[in-house]
Amino acid sequence: MMDMSTTHMAAETAEAPEAVARMLDTNRPALGELAKLYRNRGPSHLVSCARGSSDHAATYFKYLVEITLGLPFCSMGASVVSIYGARLHLRDTLLFTISQSGRSPDIIAFQAEAKRAGAPVVAITNDASSPLAAEADICLPLCTGPELSVAATKTFIASAALAAAIVGACADDRHLSDAVRRLPEDLAAAAKLRWHDVEEVAGKASSLYVLGRGPALSMAQEAALKLKETSGLHAEAHSAAEVMHGPMELVRDGYPVLVFSTKDAAAATTAANVLRLQEAGALVMQPPYRETLHPALDPISMIQTFYGSAERIARSRGRDPDAPRLLRKVTETR
Amino acid sequence: MMDMSTTHMAAETAEAPEAVARMLDTNRPALGELAKLYRNRGPSHLVSCARGSSDHAATYFKYLVEITLGLPFCSMGASVVSIYGARLHLRDTLLFTISQSGRSPDIIAFQAEAKRAGAPVVAITNDASSPLAAEADICLPLCTGPELSVAATKTFIASAALAAAIVGACADDRHLSDAVRRLPEDLAAAAKLRWHDVEEVAGKASSLYVLGRGPALSMAQEAALKLKETSGLHAEAHSAAEVMHGPMELVRDGYPVLVFSTKDAAAATTAANVLRLQEAGALVMQPPYRETLHPALDPISMIQTFYGSAERIARSRGRDPDAPRLLRKVTETR
Repeated sequence: MMDMSTTHMAAETAEAPEAVARMLDTNRPALGELAKLYRNRGPSHLVSCARGSSDHAATYFKYLVEITLGLPFCSMGASVVSIYGARLHLRDTLLFTISQSGRSPDIIAFQAEAKRAGAPVVAITNDASSPLAAEADICLPLCTGPELSVAATKTFIASAALAAAIVGACADDRHLSDAVRRLPEDLAAAAKLRWHDVEEVAGKASSLYVLGRGPALSMAQEAALKLKETSGLHAEAHSAAEVMHGPMELVRDGYPVLVFSTKDAAAATTAANVLRLQEAGALVMQPPYRETLHPALDPISMIQTFYGSAERIARSRGRDPDAPRLLRKVTETR
Repeated sequence: MMDMSTTHMAAETAEAPEAVARMLDTNRPALGELAKLYRNRGPSHLVSCARGSSDHAATYFKYLVEITLGLPFCSMGASVVSIYGARLHLRDTLLFTISQSGRSPDIIAFQAEAKRAGAPVVAITNDASSPLAAEADICLPLCTGPELSVAATKTFIASAALAAAIVGACADDRHLSDAVRRLPEDLAAAAKLRWHDVEEVAGKASSLYVLGRGPALSMAQEAALKLKETSGLHAEAHSAAEVMHGPMELVRDGYPVLVFSTKDAAAATTAANVLRLQEAGALVMQPPYRETLHPALDPISMIQTFYGSAERIARSRGRDPDAPRLLRKVTETR
């Protein structure tokens, strides 16, 4: 029996702020190279290919690109190539593959087809010696060190931080880039916060919604996956707008709803929707968070705090957060 | 009290096959015009903007485009424009807006910004006199007649069928186009099937997964939304591949899993994943369906049968499928 006060998940969550600092430092030259490639190519859109938590990082990336650069960012399923054998026609684009292990056969197959079609490929991975990294035009390593818990934490945070750094560099957005530079410090402060209410409610829930909008939607997705994975709790993510189309029907007295609500442009509409959820009886939780220097980074600060809670929720439910009953670390999807 | 043997939802589901025939007939000239526009423009990617069930139709559209045409298809959130005020840079693209009512302010705002950015816009709507239709370059009406149930059924089926017709026309894919032409007949046969097992299990469940892959993923999303909306049942959709990354942890003895598994290229990997789910104790349901002339259309045939079941499941749970407790037909998201 492992000492549950020091699970891998808790230790790796705590390592995230330093990992992000290391990742930003290591990638400084590559980010400059990428920004140059971006400006030379002038892509009409961007494409990503990823799975699981890495795909949630891609969703975060998507909103930042679409809001800041105004370009469509298209998440494509690896299966389009690996299962359906599509011949891609890629023009005026860059592909970002995101994979913690860099070894998922379907992501590798998708990347190979994109290269054949002439797209420059940027691989984001925690293993710079992986096949995904080796075959990419540019590799941006996550630099987090080994991640032993099945539940990704520090690699997800590093992926999201890297996405923000990429957008800051490509948009030449000084405000965003400066805020990214201070992110390790903000994450260290976020790691010290504790969401007692969330831990108490989710510790006993069997069904729960997690909401977010814009860049925070990805964090809602990531949080819901983590609660499923480590606590066996049926948590589902929705956009704080989409939840009003149908999913709201589940809300009854005391139904728990965790909202990743930040003080960005969506705050007013999210507040209005929260009111409607409360009128329907929902137990809405909007936990406090460490504010960063840019509203687009606040969702990363929130997930840093959330991971600490998720680890404690899993233990309070009698589970080992490092070793879900049914899951393995590297799921080699084909 | 309405006569529950003839709910709007049941009647509208039954009308779908004829509505699709009418929709295909009406849009024949416009589809030719669109295919010409597509070939003249030679877009590098496509973009969609939609919400709720219409966004599930966009997911179906996405897989067909990516598999058949090999182009990235990017679903953009209306909030990128309506909330975050992004200035879009659209080049070499076509935008498809999909809205049953054609009156959702955020979709209209997104469409206006896309037009300002120079993108040709195709509006897919059930109301050809709506603002969305009026301001589009091409309007493809769904022609289903009024839909009175809060739960969309015939408009969703018509949207998906239209997506398949568009891809058939743009790809000049005779096999797909011929199969679309026979779809009304196949849907009429599908409407006569009945998923007794699914009705029995979902009638009593409180939590359930719906799986699909490729073009069938959109139907899993649509089915899960419908079960939430009409039955207050926590049904969640997952890709039949992604479910192995984390969500599987919820599976315990007898946990119900409904799989939209068709005989397409994903069949073998889905079967392998189904086996793992069953070994973990899941009660996996893979209901039979009416086969169409093209595997990419089989998911539409399945949702036709499913809607009939969903209506009966809601009634068996003591609910009025036409009038969820908390929802309204037109959700005017901003």
